[in-house]
Amino acid sequence: MVIKHYADVKPNAYADVPEGVEMREMITERDGAPRFAMRVFDVKPGAGTPLHTHEWEHEVYILKGTGKVRTENGDTPFAPGDSVYIAPNEKHCFIADPTAPVQFICVIPAKNQCRL
Amino acid sequence: MVIKHYADVKPNAYADVPEGVEMREMITERDGAPRFAMRVFDVKPGAGTPLHTHEWEHEVYILKGTGKVRTENGDTPFAPGDSVYIAPNEKHCFIADPTAPVQFICVIPAKNQCRL
Repeated sequence: MVIKHYADVKPNAYADVPEGVEMREMITERDGAPRFAMRVFDVKPGAGTPLHTHEWEHEVYILKGTGKVRTENGDTPFAPGDSVYIAPNEKHCFIADPTAPVQFICVIPAKNQCRL
Repeated sequence: MVIKHYADVKPNAYADVPEGVEMREMITERDGAPRFAMRVFDVKPGAGTPLHTHEWEHEVYILKGTGKVRTENGDTPFAPGDSVYIAPNEKHCFIADPTAPVQFICVIPAKNQCRL
């Protein structure tokens, strides 16, 4: 068993984390987790992750703040308590509303754990 | 992309969910998720999941409330913002303090998605 608090995890171990975004790796292969990795993202008001696509899926849960998830089908608003599933190879980004910061959990397959 | 809110997901689709515990499957194979499943657990004050072991891991994030995670190494307190990694075959349970309900996310490999 490995327990750690958000406040004790240093953000942004990787260079490709965009401006206005923090990523904390909460559970990864370094904790012994073999199959998937859990990260917490903090997005400043009005900031967002890049509109991009990759071969791995995202499983997201919104903890704080409101914003929109953008895909090729348009924008969909999100709020705390929403789960968002992004399929492999689906173009996507998460954008915080200008009014308040957004925090969400994002789980990905382990071998891609250092990726957005 | 599949988005759904906690409040729109019916709890306890399975018979083995214990008294005082609700499980909501937020993202599963039914949403197209191929590799892991995200669930939200609500545990009433003083209630808990059974002390048990299984071959799949848990990746947990505490959303609300305080309690303790019990393993063969004893009890460890948890609070909102804690992540908890339970390794495959590690005996464990999550117990809510008597004072307030606990809510946490628990991610498991997809083929075991209907399990605690």
